[in-house]
Amino acid sequence: VTISEPATLPSIPDEEFRARGERLQAAVAERGLDVLLVNSNESDFANVRYLSDYWPVFESAGVVVPPSGPLTLLIGPESETFATDRSRIDRLRLLVEYREAADPAYPEIDVASFRQVFSEAGVERPLRIGIAGSFATNLVMVESLRESFPDAKLERADDLLTELRSIKSEAEVECLRSAFRIAEDAIDVILEAVRPGMTELQVVGIAQQALYERGAEYEGMPQYVLSGPNSRHAISRASHRVLERDEVLQLNISARVAGYSSGVGRPVCLGKLPRSQRDLVEFGRDAHYKTAESLRAGVIASDVAESYRRHFVDSGRIDNFLYGPCHGLGLIEVEPPWMESISHYALEENMTFQVDTFALSDEIGCRWENGVRITADGVEWLSTHHMDVIELG
Amino acid sequence: VTISEPATLPSIPDEEFRARGERLQAAVAERGLDVLLVNSNESDFANVRYLSDYWPVFESAGVVVPPSGPLTLLIGPESETFATDRSRIDRLRLLVEYREAADPAYPEIDVASFRQVFSEAGVERPLRIGIAGSFATNLVMVESLRESFPDAKLERADDLLTELRSIKSEAEVECLRSAFRIAEDAIDVILEAVRPGMTELQVVGIAQQALYERGAEYEGMPQYVLSGPNSRHAISRASHRVLERDEVLQLNISARVAGYSSGVGRPVCLGKLPRSQRDLVEFGRDAHYKTAESLRAGVIASDVAESYRRHFVDSGRIDNFLYGPCHGLGLIEVEPPWMESISHYALEENMTFQVDTFALSDEIGCRWENGVRITADGVEWLSTHHMDVIELG
Repeated sequence: VTISEPATLPSIPDEEFRARGERLQAAVAERGLDVLLVNSNESDFANVRYLSDYWPVFESAGVVVPPSGPLTLLIGPESETFATDRSRIDRLRLLVEYREAADPAYPEIDVASFRQVFSEAGVERPLRIGIAGSFATNLVMVESLRESFPDAKLERADDLLTELRSIKSEAEVECLRSAFRIAEDAIDVILEAVRPGMTELQVVGIAQQALYERGAEYEGMPQYVLSGPNSRHAISRASHRVLERDEVLQLNISARVAGYSSGVGRPVCLGKLPRSQRDLVEFGRDAHYKTAESLRAGVIASDVAESYRRHFVDSGRIDNFLYGPCHGLGLIEVEPPWMESISHYALEENMTFQVDTFALSDEIGCRWENGVRITADGVEWLSTHHMDVIELG
Repeated sequence: VTISEPATLPSIPDEEFRARGERLQAAVAERGLDVLLVNSNESDFANVRYLSDYWPVFESAGVVVPPSGPLTLLIGPESETFATDRSRIDRLRLLVEYREAADPAYPEIDVASFRQVFSEAGVERPLRIGIAGSFATNLVMVESLRESFPDAKLERADDLLTELRSIKSEAEVECLRSAFRIAEDAIDVILEAVRPGMTELQVVGIAQQALYERGAEYEGMPQYVLSGPNSRHAISRASHRVLERDEVLQLNISARVAGYSSGVGRPVCLGKLPRSQRDLVEFGRDAHYKTAESLRAGVIASDVAESYRRHFVDSGRIDNFLYGPCHGLGLIEVEPPWMESISHYALEENMTFQVDTFALSDEIGCRWENGVRITADGVEWLSTHHMDVIELG
């Protein structure tokens, strides 16, 4: 194995983390919350990482956000040294509620309680506790909060973080550019190496080596390497299926840089696609470019979704429609906001999206996927390589 | 890249999944629950996979377990084709409560409700709803359950799954053996390739390629490649730190086979360890073997924990104590039960553990970690290679 020199990679500066915290505290005050509790876990890591740069393994993590004063990072009992080295938030407390699912008791470790950490943050007897990261706020935390603060109302406040995270700074976009560049380079490596007889998962391994060599800190999502009928899965995991000639191989390759995740989707073929499948792949690419052309600051998201769907109808291909056309992109490769028929917000400059075009038949699915940044008059593409219909060898 | 032929790998037979469901239903009936809801998410996947073989990406998953009658797999709105292809449970329902954190509304997708799926399972007006997978049961699910069944009590029943999962079948042990063999082979590849000047994360990439090539379906946990001071992290993630000569490089390499996860921990060095560090590494290895020698069916777990701690005290090394000596091993690389000073259960044949020996100084941490299966008179080691103190080149 020959490994190239480590690359220099972008990251988010300390002052940007501080500014995020301050903007969030202003929003907490404006909503009249006594405190906001932001939670994340290993897979749904984004909200806590956005505020602290820390992302847990096994355990959960949280941030206590009072309307004013310092923030507190909450971690599980095993991550003190790790979190101290990584967190951009100085004050850090251990809570058993943030322990791992293996459910150890840690009789020898000294931990804090929600009452203590709220009190230290100047929050006594809260009546309105906002919760952001509802999908990462688990039953153990909920029961403990209810017992600790029986008079308080737990209010879902995910929108505060969505709002904050949806417009990207230049540093954030630079992390995304890097994450997309790494994913595109990994696709180069895959296209050079992939052969019939390999399994989907062996191709994942080739991708992983290429991603980490070039500076990925992790996969942005599990790599999709989906062959033949497996390409029909909108969400999936690669399997032990052996690749065959002349069938579709759907790649969605994803790197993470300083927390920011890319996803580059290409339907390729080891050989020649049957005509009807090639037609579907080409239709998908047309729909992809048509979607991208409709994006610019000021456009209403639901109009983009409606035109996309109408394009399937007008092309006599509504049976090939599954979903689309775009979803938010940032720390997580799929984040809010989506573009659906009920998405009545206007696109803004420096929002970032995945243009995610999935066309489905009875035989295959094919997905063209690229990142874009919204500009005043269109988009900046974050990935552009390999947009030919690739039939290898 | 040259990739070897795909290996034939063990898996869990259908009848074993059926038997698991039946044993769990007997326990649900015995406890007098009206229904048990078992939840998992992308990172905390074990309970749902144990019953269904399905493990989600982005979304959550659940299993509805009535005291009798068929089980139902609950999935998010985007995983229908994927879950249909993978699940060993035939009945499958889509619920918005199991959607991804990106929080799409899916206005065009037809979904079920908790009331409907409970009713289909013969559960009307439940008063006692057991919850297993409390750490993967999120606020969105909890609020929906409370609204749907205002008279019901939600009772944590994680112990029902812990009990069931803690004794391994021959098929499960065979999956673990395979996962450990793959991790040991990946360590061979790393030791051959690793050089000063590489980053920790580049070594992770080498490991990943080796793991997937040999048949891993995923990482069992994020690979720990922790150099110098980073080795002090009990839980961590590899970083962009560049490896230097003559410092410790802590490897914990982990593969997953048919859901079962391995973890092989070795402190190695690119060069020569300073004497005091080498002493710590050797002390750790002695403590590791001493722990393993104390394991057999019938032994009380807290006695093992106590002897382990006493060994640190008697050796004048209590300052090097962080935690240990063992934790459960299976689907997740860390699962219940742990062995702590308050663990008053007796070890049983075919329980599987990680013997996880961590010795910490101000400069480094070092961790020897191997899987074992408890037998009538000792243990079967699941990993044994590279137990020398390895100083490379």
